[in-house]
Amino acid sequence: MAVYQDTLTQQTRGRGTHHITTAVEHIVRASGITTGTCHVFQHHTSASLLVTENADPDVRHDLETLIARMAPDGDPAYRHDMEGDDDMAAHARAMLTHNDLTVPVGQGRLILGTWQGLFLWEHRYAAQTRKLTITVQGE
Amino acid sequence: MAVYQDTLTQQTRGRGTHHITTAVEHIVRASGITTGTCHVFQHHTSASLLVTENADPDVRHDLETLIARMAPDGDPAYRHDMEGDDDMAAHARAMLTHNDLTVPVGQGRLILGTWQGLFLWEHRYAAQTRKLTITVQGE
Amino acid sequence: MAVYQDTLTQQTRGRGTHHITTAVEHIVRASGITTGTCHVFQHHTSASLLVTENADPDVRHDLETLIARMAPDGDPAYRHDMEGDDDMAAHARAMLTHNDLTVPVGQGRLILGTWQGLFLWEHRYAAQTRKLTITVQGE
Repeated sequence: MAVYQDTLTQQTRGRGTHHITTAVEHIVRASGITTGTCHVFQHHTSASLLVTENADPDVRHDLETLIARMAPDGDPAYRHDMEGDDDMAAHARAMLTHNDLTVPVGQGRLILGTWQGLFLWEHRYAAQTRKLTITVQGE
Repeated sequence: MAVYQDTLTQQTRGRGTHHITTAVEHIVRASGITTGTCHVFQHHTSASLLVTENADPDVRHDLETLIARMAPDGDPAYRHDMEGDDDMAAHARAMLTHNDLTVPVGQGRLILGTWQGLFLWEHRYAAQTRKLTITVQGE
Repeated sequence: MAVYQDTLTQQTRGRGTHHITTAVEHIVRASGITTGTCHVFQHHTSASLLVTENADPDVRHDLETLIARMAPDGDPAYRHDMEGDDDMAAHARAMLTHNDLTVPVGQGRLILGTWQGLFLWEHRYAAQTRKLTITVQGE
């Protein structure tokens, strides 16, 4: 059994999903671990992680539409709005999705379904630099 | 420390929750691991995982009612609807719940609260064959 | 590689978020593990876990406002209401947030972003005693 930990930095282009499967896969290969788990954690309260379809980009477009209804920008009920209309909405979108994900590792690779991709979801309007810690455990 | 990995196949009966605690527990016992974690991952973008009450089935009925409001079938705003009214709704329901869960293992068993059960949630109308990977780690 | 497991008991003051970062950090230090992961699991179906901003309490106030819209107390559609208006709402709020979280451990501490805190979210009106199991794995 071994543990291997590395960081990942993702420049975002503002609100939207950023595909990170390949970058995470590189860390799994570098770990030399063949069977176990890969834990992905992002270090921000206005971004989040998501596993969803990696084929038709309309899926992520429609997820944006729905989450914007649930966590509206600039809602009049918000008390926390110091950084603009997307400030509180970003925290709420993060709550409804995932701060960390774990993916099984087998034969030295992420075991994902055919249509599954890993995405970092930027919830702020402006481009940001986002940090992630990846921890691979197993043998 | 050891790692033990196995797969689980669940035939679903269409939209609704399927109780998987017992099947996961069997894998934990087979692992021989007494203290650690059990990671459950499902490999589809239109199904998800949930820990919720395993007693009154009305709880899961009411969760269906609420998630159908948040991720409506056949919403006119959807661009992604190739496979029918439940196609995009299924991806959205998956986003709002969980693609993977980890449960602690103690004394060779899942450590769950009295009322907690593990469920695979099918979000498509039609019955499907769903695959899961279970990874037990510990000593 | 080693595994270290301990329990945490949190008395809640009724609905609202309770900061647990420090209590979890104590268990990480007691584990002696310097690199790996810390898994936090709560054993109830009417409470949940959340990583969110630990600075301005208005963030958690606004999250309460939004989740109350998505999972209303005493909704006329609920079948499950034996324990009152907050009974089914609590299960639904738990579904939309997280039953378990994993945080990376580095240099013997939780690796959290500057603004990230760990919270136990009580969803029932009344104060409760909530149990958590913490499992630290690594080397």
